[in-house]
Amino acid sequence: MAKKVTCIEGGICAPKGFLSAAVGCGIKDPKVKRLDLGLIYSEAPTVGWAVYTQNEVCAAPVRLSSSYLKSHPPRAIIVNSGNANACTGHQGMLDARTMADSTANSLGILRREVQVCSTGIIGVPLPMDRIEREIAPLGQSLKADGDDIARAVMTSDTQPKSVAAEFKIGRKKVRIGAVAKGAGMINPHMATMLCFVTTDANISQAEVKAATNEAVAQSFNRISVDGDMSTNDTVIVMANGQAENDRIVRSGNGSGDFREALTQVMLHLAKMIVADGERVTKLVEVKVTGAASRLDAERVARAVGNSKLVKCSWNGNDPNWGRVIHAVGYSGARVKEEMVEIHFDGVIACQNGLAAKTNIDELSAAVKKDEFTVCINLNIGKGSYSLFTSDLSPEYVEFNREEYALNRKS
Amino acid sequence: MAKKVTCIEGGICAPKGFLSAAVGCGIKDPKVKRLDLGLIYSEAPTVGWAVYTQNEVCAAPVRLSSSYLKSHPPRAIIVNSGNANACTGHQGMLDARTMADSTANSLGILRREVQVCSTGIIGVPLPMDRIEREIAPLGQSLKADGDDIARAVMTSDTQPKSVAAEFKIGRKKVRIGAVAKGAGMINPHMATMLCFVTTDANISQAEVKAATNEAVAQSFNRISVDGDMSTNDTVIVMANGQAENDRIVRSGNGSGDFREALTQVMLHLAKMIVADGERVTKLVEVKVTGAASRLDAERVARAVGNSKLVKCSWNGNDPNWGRVIHAVGYSGARVKEEMVEIHFDGVIACQNGLAAKTNIDELSAAVKKDEFTVCINLNIGKGSYSLFTSDLSPEYVEFNREEYALNRKS
Repeated sequence: MAKKVTCIEGGICAPKGFLSAAVGCGIKDPKVKRLDLGLIYSEAPTVGWAVYTQNEVCAAPVRLSSSYLKSHPPRAIIVNSGNANACTGHQGMLDARTMADSTANSLGILRREVQVCSTGIIGVPLPMDRIEREIAPLGQSLKADGDDIARAVMTSDTQPKSVAAEFKIGRKKVRIGAVAKGAGMINPHMATMLCFVTTDANISQAEVKAATNEAVAQSFNRISVDGDMSTNDTVIVMANGQAENDRIVRSGNGSGDFREALTQVMLHLAKMIVADGERVTKLVEVKVTGAASRLDAERVARAVGNSKLVKCSWNGNDPNWGRVIHAVGYSGARVKEEMVEIHFDGVIACQNGLAAKTNIDELSAAVKKDEFTVCINLNIGKGSYSLFTSDLSPEYVEFNREEYALNRKS
Repeated sequence: MAKKVTCIEGGICAPKGFLSAAVGCGIKDPKVKRLDLGLIYSEAPTVGWAVYTQNEVCAAPVRLSSSYLKSHPPRAIIVNSGNANACTGHQGMLDARTMADSTANSLGILRREVQVCSTGIIGVPLPMDRIEREIAPLGQSLKADGDDIARAVMTSDTQPKSVAAEFKIGRKKVRIGAVAKGAGMINPHMATMLCFVTTDANISQAEVKAATNEAVAQSFNRISVDGDMSTNDTVIVMANGQAENDRIVRSGNGSGDFREALTQVMLHLAKMIVADGERVTKLVEVKVTGAASRLDAERVARAVGNSKLVKCSWNGNDPNWGRVIHAVGYSGARVKEEMVEIHFDGVIACQNGLAAKTNIDELSAAVKKDEFTVCINLNIGKGSYSLFTSDLSPEYVEFNREEYALNRKS
């Protein structure tokens, strides 16, 4: 966190006026009662914004929630793990709507103030009998404790992911709390990246929307695990004004601080998502500089960060700059081969497009680390971009081999 | 092969007037004398065309050969395996030029009539002392036998790949021969897809160019192993007119038959490339129909065929249509989820965007085959495209983990 922002305890219930609860209803398997249904609620009215997957095939809860967002800011989030309620047709929409209705009834708010999120297997209807009866009790058991909800959203995440931060706007302390679950590589069940952010900042609707879009672009849109985009990805930000700071408006006092803190909170969770899971052994930052444009820099970072051959070499601690430069070459960016420079964690591997005269053991040591940086300087312009990604392990493939048939047989 | 085209023996030397030879010079390791340098030559003057990698980072031999192609049709090909002569700077260009010079001298032809090809590791200079001295003897040992050259181009291919075909134009028999080596998934050494085609057809320069571009688009550009594009990919077609058929010109007699035969020869080798290698267990055709446009259909086929999660499920014999439809969704193509239909080898898995009521064992049996088809009908238009691809195995990752360091230490 930057100097002005302090990490604190409490997760999504660190900001004033936010409550949460979670319960186990055996969504995936009635015999296993792990926490799989959660609720987040702001006691006071809110402003807020959400960003959803751009996948054309999107889940029923995403369709429902995005339609609600158009008219009402989110004040409560009902979320389940174990089943994505995706590719479930008309019944899926009815089920998502029932989840919103029950939640609204339980809290005495409007249905359209509820955001519904689901994560888990695709193409299987929700077990609504088990879910619906748990929602009213959930509304009764709300408390200012974010631990259970952080567990309830997990699918194959190996650990809960939450963070909270505090900073000052004028003389008022403002807090941001957040919880997330991971996706893709760390998740053999094709589930989703979810992130819910709460803040007690007093902020305008326009500014919370702009800040959310900016922070997502700088964090969750800058991670790549396996290049796949889920049907359910959702980031929701709710702000309830309980910190009583002077209202933050666009380009006004505190706007820069709020955006920076929000970005840092999301980036912190984004990196946790990439690093999580025993099947990932490396967190790698691909930093591209000297590109003809920012877009070209992003093209290079994504081509390198998504290349199966590059990711395999990282898994083997192999400083294979040849594979990196070949991905640079097919990225679609303007490249002058004889200008390209590649460093592995500060150790030069390639200069002027040629092998640098670095000792191989020094290079190998650089990529042996759990976290390292690959810097690629194209040396032709000022465009830059950085992406957080991971290696590709044999275990990733093993864990992703046979989900569907197993689930249909169970 | 189609009805008019017959498969014959003889590889690239099946057509009249083509000779080849190969030798082992220990390019990768002086102690191992496997065949690694080969020569193909047409006794008579030729017309011809070549298609090269579109990677911005391309190898010295690709740069040299493409410049020669601008002024002269290819009459000889000198090719080495074990070293790609890529990212080797000025010295790499000098070395490629020396290979062309020595070949031209040995054959008494112009330097610019020689195409130079290399495949193997990136970023290491060619061992020119070992290569140069073998080129003149190679020119002396040419014979009408394509077996050795098919071995000389192999890197980690598990078997040589060649094919020859015969068909009639008027009353004349015309032959096409071809040799290829594989790339990507079946190749832990990041090497290249190479294909050399010989034909004794009498054909115009303009028509051989058009036919080559069309056949490559229908074959090598329709396979995807790991989504990576090599620095050295090259397809070269040489035609020497020795079949004495009436000259084939654009839209003229025999043009359709020639194009069809050339496409079939290339497609045959393209499929062999995908299927080769113990680390690939499946050859999968992704057939997309009903798209809004041909481009949309291609987007869907490539998104599905390159998805790591989809490819993992195939490796596990898992009929996971959820992962397929989620890749359809992020492909960038226009998609109406409720219209999407997915079949695994003729067995319906998804109808109207929902799970079809097919028995899971029947679906599992479909994807258990070594070769199967995934048909995706978007049901919104007439665009179609098909792509040949493979599964992603844990062994692929194992084999691609540490090439560079090993090679630098040896």
